[in-house]
Amino acid sequence: MKLSRLQAFSDGVFAILITILVMDFKVPDYQTGHLLAAVIQQWPVLAAYILSFMYIGILWLFHHDLFSVFAQIDRNVNLLNLLMLFAITLINYPTALLSHTLMHYQRTDLQVAFISYAVIALFISLTFLMLYRYLRQHPELKSARVSPQLFATISYDPLRSMVIYLLSIIATFFSVELGALLLVGGIIFHFYAYLHLSRRITV
Amino acid sequence: MKLSRLQAFSDGVFAILITILVMDFKVPDYQTGHLLAAVIQQWPVLAAYILSFMYIGILWLFHHDLFSVFAQIDRNVNLLNLLMLFAITLINYPTALLSHTLMHYQRTDLQVAFISYAVIALFISLTFLMLYRYLRQHPELKSARVSPQLFATISYDPLRSMVIYLLSIIATFFSVELGALLLVGGIIFHFYAYLHLSRRITV
Amino acid sequence: MKLSRLQAFSDGVFAILITILVMDFKVPDYQTGHLLAAVIQQWPVLAAYILSFMYIGILWLFHHDLFSVFAQIDRNVNLLNLLMLFAITLINYPTALLSHTLMHYQRTDLQVAFISYAVIALFISLTFLMLYRYLRQHPELKSARVSPQLFATISYDPLRSMVIYLLSIIATFFSVELGALLLVGGIIFHFYAYLHLSRRITV
Amino acid sequence: MKLSRLQAFSDGVFAILITILVMDFKVPDYQTGHLLAAVIQQWPVLAAYILSFMYIGILWLFHHDLFSVFAQIDRNVNLLNLLMLFAITLINYPTALLSHTLMHYQRTDLQVAFISYAVIALFISLTFLMLYRYLRQHPELKSARVSPQLFATISYDPLRSMVIYLLSIIATFFSVELGALLLVGGIIFHFYAYLHLSRRITV
Repeated sequence: MKLSRLQAFSDGVFAILITILVMDFKVPDYQTGHLLAAVIQQWPVLAAYILSFMYIGILWLFHHDLFSVFAQIDRNVNLLNLLMLFAITLINYPTALLSHTLMHYQRTDLQVAFISYAVIALFISLTFLMLYRYLRQHPELKSARVSPQLFATISYDPLRSMVIYLLSIIATFFSVELGALLLVGGIIFHFYAYLHLSRRITV
Repeated sequence: MKLSRLQAFSDGVFAILITILVMDFKVPDYQTGHLLAAVIQQWPVLAAYILSFMYIGILWLFHHDLFSVFAQIDRNVNLLNLLMLFAITLINYPTALLSHTLMHYQRTDLQVAFISYAVIALFISLTFLMLYRYLRQHPELKSARVSPQLFATISYDPLRSMVIYLLSIIATFFSVELGALLLVGGIIFHFYAYLHLSRRITV
Repeated sequence: MKLSRLQAFSDGVFAILITILVMDFKVPDYQTGHLLAAVIQQWPVLAAYILSFMYIGILWLFHHDLFSVFAQIDRNVNLLNLLMLFAITLINYPTALLSHTLMHYQRTDLQVAFISYAVIALFISLTFLMLYRYLRQHPELKSARVSPQLFATISYDPLRSMVIYLLSIIATFFSVELGALLLVGGIIFHFYAYLHLSRRITV
Repeated sequence: MKLSRLQAFSDGVFAILITILVMDFKVPDYQTGHLLAAVIQQWPVLAAYILSFMYIGILWLFHHDLFSVFAQIDRNVNLLNLLMLFAITLINYPTALLSHTLMHYQRTDLQVAFISYAVIALFISLTFLMLYRYLRQHPELKSARVSPQLFATISYDPLRSMVIYLLSIIATFFSVELGALLLVGGIIFHFYAYLHLSRRITV
């Protein structure tokens, strides 16, 4: 399989996932004449949608910059990429958990939702780590444009975000607020990692 | 990232969004033998679908002509485009609000639905304005084919439509009919702005 | 806009529509231990799915062969294509009506479902007719590979299928079975028209 | 139609199908404060999702390697490919049956779910077999890169997996566990067949 086809397929999955997320944004149950109150009470659905749209958007940008590092791909890269896409499609589930539990605001349920989200995020970062590792062990797949030093620096990024998500999971047991902060922080960290990567690689 | 990839991803989001809108068009609850009446009562779902299909279709045509103005893109264009796609996917929600409230026809609920739609439309036009502004400040991204005078004229379009949507929001407080008229008028204005743009730029 | 982009966007809409149709194929309500009976009673969902998958598949093949006739496109072709895609996405609705009414098998409701399907099919053929007409009036858009005689012959196809769908609508008032037969016949006619077209144009 | 377009359309269907599967992963009904138990009870949804994601992922890889064998396509290949895509989209239904029945764990219902899955899998393998047969009878469509001996060997793969799925169907009548094992075994067999194919063809 050619690299361009893997990218096109992945782009498709990203585009579909980021768009179907909005389908959780349904008309609320409301009494005739009281739609406004029902719409306002739906703010958690919007909040969870914004978070996941941002997260998937950054993952998409990251995925592209990552695959611009490849000169060619082999079968294992293909399988690792499918594993990564699998992990990313799962985001749909904790996003829904988050918007539901934020509406009722019960502490134990919120912990379940935030920990689920962080576990999926941890899994996603793990698949990025696996791809980086594989690329490091197979320099023949690497594009000549990327310097070894830069690559060594970048490849620690998934590890760093995994630590943040792990801390978020642990923190949520004691304080939902701190856990949530770390989770959102981890996603913002991805954003900075992307800016960092895109500045150094000329694609 | 290359311009062609940003366009392909955006095309994907537009194609998915415009297609999943039809999924709100469900079989109505009906008593056996009385399907016809139930189907006829669903006219607001069709009306809202037509409006949003037309709107997203025009936005897609517009998006393409806008990006044909670019010779290359940078990171910020990429992020602004993601923000624009986020705003556009939101259309799904007020479309559903509109079809539900038009079926019950209660004034306060209708106001909420029309204002929600106009707010999203205002947000979408704002993201177009931001992209135009950014392009004006970064002439190095601009294609040589576009004359500065033409560009100066065109770039007021999002501003004009924002004024229309703002007027629609204000008007809805006093008269739902006038607000609705202005909203639909704003979308038709997009259509004329597109015809205007496409006549002048040879893509 | 370039022809290739219009085709890619249309392909996307076709691919999404043909795939989301399967989402109407839900797990039926059933008592524990009696899933088999519930699954068997769902045969109309499968029947309606097969019909619409076949129909959309043929429309896709047809769309492709039609657009291979174009050497270039203009703005109106673009708008007519959007109208055609709008008509095609609507198939989702009568497909659901069909599978629901076939499960209860009440005559009046079945008439509503079959007539809805035929009306949408009539509308789709009308958009094909409009595109053919436009192409005939603008020979400068036409590819040199297509002979005028062949084109004149082909362009009657949408008209023929419109007559079939119209007969199906009228027949359904008297006999649901005859109306259904004509509807399925119309879709099979599309299939033959496609075979006819694809044999004569070397793409 | 060109081969590249058939592949792009098929890629689209695969990408959409693999992504919408996650939409069955909904927030469970739960009493406030007891989300965790409800989430854990949903393990069959995750299990069925993993199985079908893996299956569709492998089918996609397989589809690609299969079509890399073609030098060109004709109308019948196009129609056979549509039949194959139809069979593959159906996976959505037994996946949902599987996750529902695994949650209630009633023997008769489980048999229905597993047999449905195996029947669809049998149908999918049959469409692959039909494409291989057609390709063997039309060597003019075959790429020169593929040796006749290799091709003869590979083309027995769909037949082999059909035997496995047939055994799975028969076994399920006596033992759900054995039937399930054979079904999962058949999907893993696809995986090995893919590794086998991709090692021998240099794409």
